[in-house]
Amino acid sequence: MEKQALPPGTRILLTNDDGVNAPGLELLRATFSEQAEVTIVAPQASQSAMSHATTSRVPVRVHRLPPRDGVTVYAVEGTPVDCVKLALDNLLPTQPDLVISGINHGSNASVNALYSGTVGAALEATTAGLKSVAFSTLYTSHLADLSPCAPYCLKIVQRILESQVPERTSFNVNFPAQRAKGIKLCRQANVCWRNSFVAQETPRGHTVYWLSGDATNLEPEATDTDLYYLQEGYISMVPLTIDWTNHAYLEQIAQWSW
Amino acid sequence: MEKQALPPGTRILLTNDDGVNAPGLELLRATFSEQAEVTIVAPQASQSAMSHATTSRVPVRVHRLPPRDGVTVYAVEGTPVDCVKLALDNLLPTQPDLVISGINHGSNASVNALYSGTVGAALEATTAGLKSVAFSTLYTSHLADLSPCAPYCLKIVQRILESQVPERTSFNVNFPAQRAKGIKLCRQANVCWRNSFVAQETPRGHTVYWLSGDATNLEPEATDTDLYYLQEGYISMVPLTIDWTNHAYLEQIAQWSW
Repeated sequence: MEKQALPPGTRILLTNDDGVNAPGLELLRATFSEQAEVTIVAPQASQSAMSHATTSRVPVRVHRLPPRDGVTVYAVEGTPVDCVKLALDNLLPTQPDLVISGINHGSNASVNALYSGTVGAALEATTAGLKSVAFSTLYTSHLADLSPCAPYCLKIVQRILESQVPERTSFNVNFPAQRAKGIKLCRQANVCWRNSFVAQETPRGHTVYWLSGDATNLEPEATDTDLYYLQEGYISMVPLTIDWTNHAYLEQIAQWSW
Repeated sequence: MEKQALPPGTRILLTNDDGVNAPGLELLRATFSEQAEVTIVAPQASQSAMSHATTSRVPVRVHRLPPRDGVTVYAVEGTPVDCVKLALDNLLPTQPDLVISGINHGSNASVNALYSGTVGAALEATTAGLKSVAFSTLYTSHLADLSPCAPYCLKIVQRILESQVPERTSFNVNFPAQRAKGIKLCRQANVCWRNSFVAQETPRGHTVYWLSGDATNLEPEATDTDLYYLQEGYISMVPLTIDWTNHAYLEQIAQWSW
C-alpha cells in the first residue's frame, strides 16, 4: 500500500474508550503524529460500553501526562464523551480538523454502535460540527498486533479529510479479525443481543448479574451490512448520523389526528 | 379529554433514568396500572445523562422493593439500559407489549436524545423488537405537578399500541413547561451544546470540571422540529430509529475506490 499524506498542518484530536494506555490508542498516535498535530484526551481508565454518557453528578478531573514523542496527553476521569467536550471547550487551543476515536479492542459493528464509548466519542464530535471517525477491531486481545490496521486508518482519514462529509455524520469503521481484503462502505446490520445478563452467586450468597449475552444477526441473508463484510474479511465503514429521526415513518404519521 | 382505554391484558414495563423514587415514574405507574399489568424495573438512584451505557466491569445488583398498589417494583444498581435488559432477560415472566421510560424531569428534545438515559432505555427496548416510548418534560423541578401530562401519556400509548410501528423505531416525547396545546409529530432539531464544562477550584486547590453548557439551536428558522413545537407550547413526538446509517450519504459514497 502506498504511503498516504495528510494535508500539511492537519490537527487531530485522539481519544478512545479503552483508556489512555490502550495499545490501540498508541498505534494511532504513532501512525498520525508523524504527519499531523495530534493531541490525546482520553479516559484515565477503561470506559467500555459507556455509549454517549457524560458525567453529570460529580465533577471531572483532568491530568496532564508526560508527552509521548512530543504529543500532548491528557487523562480524564470521565467518559469518552466527557473527553471530547473537555478537549473542544477547555483543553485544545484550536479546534481540530478531525476527531479520531479508537482503535477499540472489540467489535463496534451493527447495534454495538449504540453501546460503544468509542462511537459515542466520534458522534459527540459531530455535534460540534467536526469530522470524526471511530476505529474498532474484532481482535479483542490487548496483546494483538494491530499494526496492519495503520495504513488503512491513514487511507480512511485522508479520504474523510478531503471529502465533503454531511453535517451530523460520522464514520464507524471495524476491522476484521484476520488480515483485511479491503474497505467496504455499508450499512449497520440489524442485530439483537439476548441473554444479556448472567446471574451468579457471590461468595457471600448474594445474587449479582454480569453483562454477557449472545448477538443474533437478524438479517443473516443480507449482503450489504457491516456484519456481512466483516465475515467476508473486509473492513466495514458505516456513515452514521446523529439525526435519529425516522424520516420515512414520520412522513407517514405526521398527520395523525388526536 | 375523553378517557382512553388500553387493550385488555396489556403488559407494560416501566423504567426511567431519574431513579425508582422519582415523581415522574410514580405518575406513570398511577396512570397505567389501572388499565394494564405494569412492572417497574428502574435504577436505584439517578442515572441522568447515562445515554445507552451498560454496566460491564462490575456486576449489577437487583433489589425487589415492596409492591406499589399491586405493582411489582425492582430497583437496579445500574443504568437504564441495564434495567431494560434485566427486565426482559431475567425478571419479567413474559415479554411486555410496550416499554415506557420516564417521565424524565428535564428536556430530552433535539440532540439531548443522544445523552439521555430515558431515551436510551426506550431505544434498548427496540433492539429486542418491542414498542417503546420515552416521556420527558421541560419542567425540571421534582416538585412540579406533572398530572396534566397523564391523559396525554395515555392517549400516546394507546396510539402506539394500535399502530404498526416499524422495526427499530421508538418515540421521543417531550412536554412543554406550560400547559400543552396538543401533540405534534416532528423531527429532531439540530442543536449544539457549547461551554459544556465549567472549571472550578476545590477547597483543596484542585481544578475540577462540572458539566454545564448552553444549547444553541442551529436551525432557529425551522418550523418542523421538536424545539419549535415545544417553544410554541405543543408536546413534541419524534419517531427515532436505532438504524443510525446515513443512507442517503451511503448511496453517494458506496462506490468510493480505495
